[in-house]
Amino acid sequence: MTLNVYLSGEIHTDWRERITDGAADLGITFNAPVTDHGASDDCGVAILGAEDNPFWHDHKGAKVNAIRTRMGIEQADVVVVRFGDKYKQWNAAFDAGYAAALGKSLIVLHAPDLRHALKEVDGAALAVAETPEQVVQVLRYVLTGALPG
Amino acid sequence: MTLNVYLSGEIHTDWRERITDGAADLGITFNAPVTDHGASDDCGVAILGAEDNPFWHDHKGAKVNAIRTRMGIEQADVVVVRFGDKYKQWNAAFDAGYAAALGKSLIVLHAPDLRHALKEVDGAALAVAETPEQVVQVLRYVLTGALPG
Amino acid sequence: MTLNVYLSGEIHTDWRERITDGAADLGITFNAPVTDHGASDDCGVAILGAEDNPFWHDHKGAKVNAIRTRMGIEQADVVVVRFGDKYKQWNAAFDAGYAAALGKSLIVLHAPDLRHALKEVDGAALAVAETPEQVVQVLRYVLTGALPG
Amino acid sequence: MTLNVYLSGEIHTDWRERITDGAADLGITFNAPVTDHGASDDCGVAILGAEDNPFWHDHKGAKVNAIRTRMGIEQADVVVVRFGDKYKQWNAAFDAGYAAALGKSLIVLHAPDLRHALKEVDGAALAVAETPEQVVQVLRYVLTGALPG
Amino acid sequence: MTLNVYLSGEIHTDWRERITDGAADLGITFNAPVTDHGASDDCGVAILGAEDNPFWHDHKGAKVNAIRTRMGIEQADVVVVRFGDKYKQWNAAFDAGYAAALGKSLIVLHAPDLRHALKEVDGAALAVAETPEQVVQVLRYVLTGALPG
Amino acid sequence: MTLNVYLSGEIHTDWRERITDGAADLGITFNAPVTDHGASDDCGVAILGAEDNPFWHDHKGAKVNAIRTRMGIEQADVVVVRFGDKYKQWNAAFDAGYAAALGKSLIVLHAPDLRHALKEVDGAALAVAETPEQVVQVLRYVLTGALPG
Amino acid sequence: MTLNVYLSGEIHTDWRERITDGAADLGITFNAPVTDHGASDDCGVAILGAEDNPFWHDHKGAKVNAIRTRMGIEQADVVVVRFGDKYKQWNAAFDAGYAAALGKSLIVLHAPDLRHALKEVDGAALAVAETPEQVVQVLRYVLTGALPG
Amino acid sequence: MTLNVYLSGEIHTDWRERITDGAADLGITFNAPVTDHGASDDCGVAILGAEDNPFWHDHKGAKVNAIRTRMGIEQADVVVVRFGDKYKQWNAAFDAGYAAALGKSLIVLHAPDLRHALKEVDGAALAVAETPEQVVQVLRYVLTGALPG
Repeated sequence: MTLNVYLSGEIHTDWRERITDGAADLGITFNAPVTDHGASDDCGVAILGAEDNPFWHDHKGAKVNAIRTRMGIEQADVVVVRFGDKYKQWNAAFDAGYAAALGKSLIVLHAPDLRHALKEVDGAALAVAETPEQVVQVLRYVLTGALPG
Repeated sequence: MTLNVYLSGEIHTDWRERITDGAADLGITFNAPVTDHGASDDCGVAILGAEDNPFWHDHKGAKVNAIRTRMGIEQADVVVVRFGDKYKQWNAAFDAGYAAALGKSLIVLHAPDLRHALKEVDGAALAVAETPEQVVQVLRYVLTGALPG
Repeated sequence: MTLNVYLSGEIHTDWRERITDGAADLGITFNAPVTDHGASDDCGVAILGAEDNPFWHDHKGAKVNAIRTRMGIEQADVVVVRFGDKYKQWNAAFDAGYAAALGKSLIVLHAPDLRHALKEVDGAALAVAETPEQVVQVLRYVLTGALPG
Repeated sequence: MTLNVYLSGEIHTDWRERITDGAADLGITFNAPVTDHGASDDCGVAILGAEDNPFWHDHKGAKVNAIRTRMGIEQADVVVVRFGDKYKQWNAAFDAGYAAALGKSLIVLHAPDLRHALKEVDGAALAVAETPEQVVQVLRYVLTGALPG
Repeated sequence: MTLNVYLSGEIHTDWRERITDGAADLGITFNAPVTDHGASDDCGVAILGAEDNPFWHDHKGAKVNAIRTRMGIEQADVVVVRFGDKYKQWNAAFDAGYAAALGKSLIVLHAPDLRHALKEVDGAALAVAETPEQVVQVLRYVLTGALPG
Repeated sequence: MTLNVYLSGEIHTDWRERITDGAADLGITFNAPVTDHGASDDCGVAILGAEDNPFWHDHKGAKVNAIRTRMGIEQADVVVVRFGDKYKQWNAAFDAGYAAALGKSLIVLHAPDLRHALKEVDGAALAVAETPEQVVQVLRYVLTGALPG
Repeated sequence: MTLNVYLSGEIHTDWRERITDGAADLGITFNAPVTDHGASDDCGVAILGAEDNPFWHDHKGAKVNAIRTRMGIEQADVVVVRFGDKYKQWNAAFDAGYAAALGKSLIVLHAPDLRHALKEVDGAALAVAETPEQVVQVLRYVLTGALPG
Repeated sequence: MTLNVYLSGEIHTDWRERITDGAADLGITFNAPVTDHGASDDCGVAILGAEDNPFWHDHKGAKVNAIRTRMGIEQADVVVVRFGDKYKQWNAAFDAGYAAALGKSLIVLHAPDLRHALKEVDGAALAVAETPEQVVQVLRYVLTGALPG
């Protein structure tokens, strides 16, 4: 049994590295969006031509990024969505809804103080974790049956 | 041709009424989540028993509400998602992702200043409106071919 | 918004009547398996010919009943599964799994002492109730937003 | 032609080993739930935090286990479900229903005295076996066309 | 609960009338292929233009008929397939396979002497009947729970 | 048996009227795109705001129109696609591909001289007609079994 | 580009060998039912226990064989169905219908004199061949673009 | 993360080579239709027998080609559709519609002067490019996050 895991959401902390490092022995295939904020914002116009209107600047980029994010979610067995303490992060919640509608196993990762605002997202999840290490432990248990400690 | 339209998102302004009133002559079936904030928060414990832990208080409510929201989205031809200027509104973005994954026609309604934060949601939409009246005009055009003015 | 609700499981108490009576004003379409125990056991051989081997006696009946139960689940928006205190009730758990795989909203109804044995079934549910009246309250809330009391 | 087989159900006898040993030459990929009873019961709280209420203790565990069991069933070509003589085993019947709704080939394994109680589950199966050796013979025939003896 | 039933297969005996007459009080929607043999054979060329090559004569007709037969099967809850004692009837077996792949409830109707030749078709069915009256009894039981006699 | 028919393609001749008039007695539900060329081109900017760049002018309109055309195709049992002698008509071929991928019954309507250019589209169709009257005859036969003459 | 091809139908001539030999250089994965007539007839009772009633003898075998045939069709990109001049061959037509409903590319292989009886099956096919060598040529063209001669 | 990309459309310029050469380091699996115009036109009759009527000549070829094109689109993560300045190219638009209905990520490649005629196709795309090099840059960004220059 192998796992394909998509890591969606926050791009400004090291949570992805803590998961991929912690799970390095498990043979998991990890995918993620492009996490370079500037590249992610500008990819549409950088490749397909500049736009005067910032709406279309954003629109072109969002669609090019969607090629990667949709494929990542659709190929995943498990989708982990991380919410941090900055920005609106509506794309993370969008990914969670997208994954839920496709029947993917959803793990949500966030600090306890976001509990109420994330209740619908958590309600669709099979695990709600507070730390990347807990996510690793869930993945390890799912693959090997081993519990921490 | 008739339309089933689900109105997701913000529950603190009159945008739903402005759409249902403006489209009153079109024979559209409109559905929406429970928009009574208190009832929506407490439905789980009010019916299924109190919880000491606020996480499970929220969890029970989120799942009971999901019975209605998932059905509303799955039965819809068009899903309108409204983002206002308060709260995190991650449930709205979750609904948008859920609708997009099911291939529903998505209309997003928000003020222009939310453009950048909503670019992924807008990127999945077939129309991005700033006012409820524009949403009505889209629905009217879709059903009758009539344009405003 | 209307609801199609399938009532699966225990056939020896009045829980179905308590739900359909309590929800009589809600315009819900209720379906259920054939609840006449004898007819349900013998339908296969009574119509399609006797069998010497009790395995095939049961088999013929199970398949004829499946025409009704599968249709009931597939057409439902909400599937309520009731577990009582007698018999193995593996058909109820089978129906719950069938409904879950189809993405139906699942409500499980059972006494608290069955908690541990039903944890996987409850884990797939959007609501876990102890009384038929709670199921009615969930359905009423889903359709009207009204809470009890 | 290769086979992916998921072995669901009873965890207190050696039926899985008898199947995997007997089919060792067939190149089959076998998956199964975590069969350590204690780990399976406690995985939710061991990883994601303790719960006072036993319902939520069970709930957290059931959902973490669901990540593995759903993936196992969804990736399988054949799902074998074993019913023993102890416990309620509603999770086994739930898995059988889940597999049936996804159109998986279902093999049910149980002693003859469970015939009547399992008639709906057997009715959805492509083979009903009494011994693990019969399951091996079915898998061998499916892959190679060879019959026993 | 209502039923949509498609009656596929043999067109040279009165089995369809015996079913629709016998089930006249059940509110079932019955559909069927065009049962006028000549019209069914010639519909393609009669409408879309003559063909010199009999293969294309047949081909045009088969495709026009497919508009009706596929719709009939796809809209059905139950597909009844009748095999008589004349002709190859490969279209009946094709319809049975088509219905089975879509997960429709399949009832096969044939004389006992066709047992061995139809074993794969019967193996996919939820009921195997010898007379149209038995089919009526199955439909009546499915809808009302009433057994004959 | 009723039919839902979507009429896609050319908007500059009276072929739709000839079909809906000829089939007026058949109880068919007909849908179509907005056939007012100007409204169809300008709907996006007329409702959602002007665009300097003609690409985005077209883009906004195409997406608003897609709400109607996708719904029309998805709800249809039969999709008729008409190709005339003017314009590129890539949207008609796009609709045909969209309908084919959804498994809709496809009828293509065009003059014989477009045969070679339309061979892939015709190859996915269940009927290829040269006149609207032939389409009416196909629909009449599908619903009633009656052939012309 | 690789191909998974399922070879369904007649088991008494060497057509499968002629295809697999002719296509030996193409890297195609070929699957087929068990073609040992006796084993195919008796597999159910040989493994799962004897039956007095020949209907259940056949039934048990048909279901065990279905594990292999359904998997073969579901994994295939192309399904070739061969009709010979003996037996009813309803299982071949059933497989063709099953494959068609799943949207598989269907190639039918039969002598010209079966044209009329097979018109519905041929009507669902993307190629109708008279010889195994033509099937090989189709597969070669699909994979390499090379035409014969 | 790897990509399977199908290159549909124009067969008379070197755009496919420019994409596959430019993306040679990315480990992408590229598929395409048979691009030998003559072979593509004649494959049906060359393999399956000559036809007097040019409609059936074309028809047989279109269907044999469909085995390859449908498989190519269905297996793809990304479908690139190229429109040139010659011919009707309805098959390209058909492929775009087919890909869109399956939810594939669509990239359209055409000169700016085709903008208005392709607005519906572009409206369904996640990227609209003018040069093959831009397509390569999109694919490179999707796989690696690297932007040009």
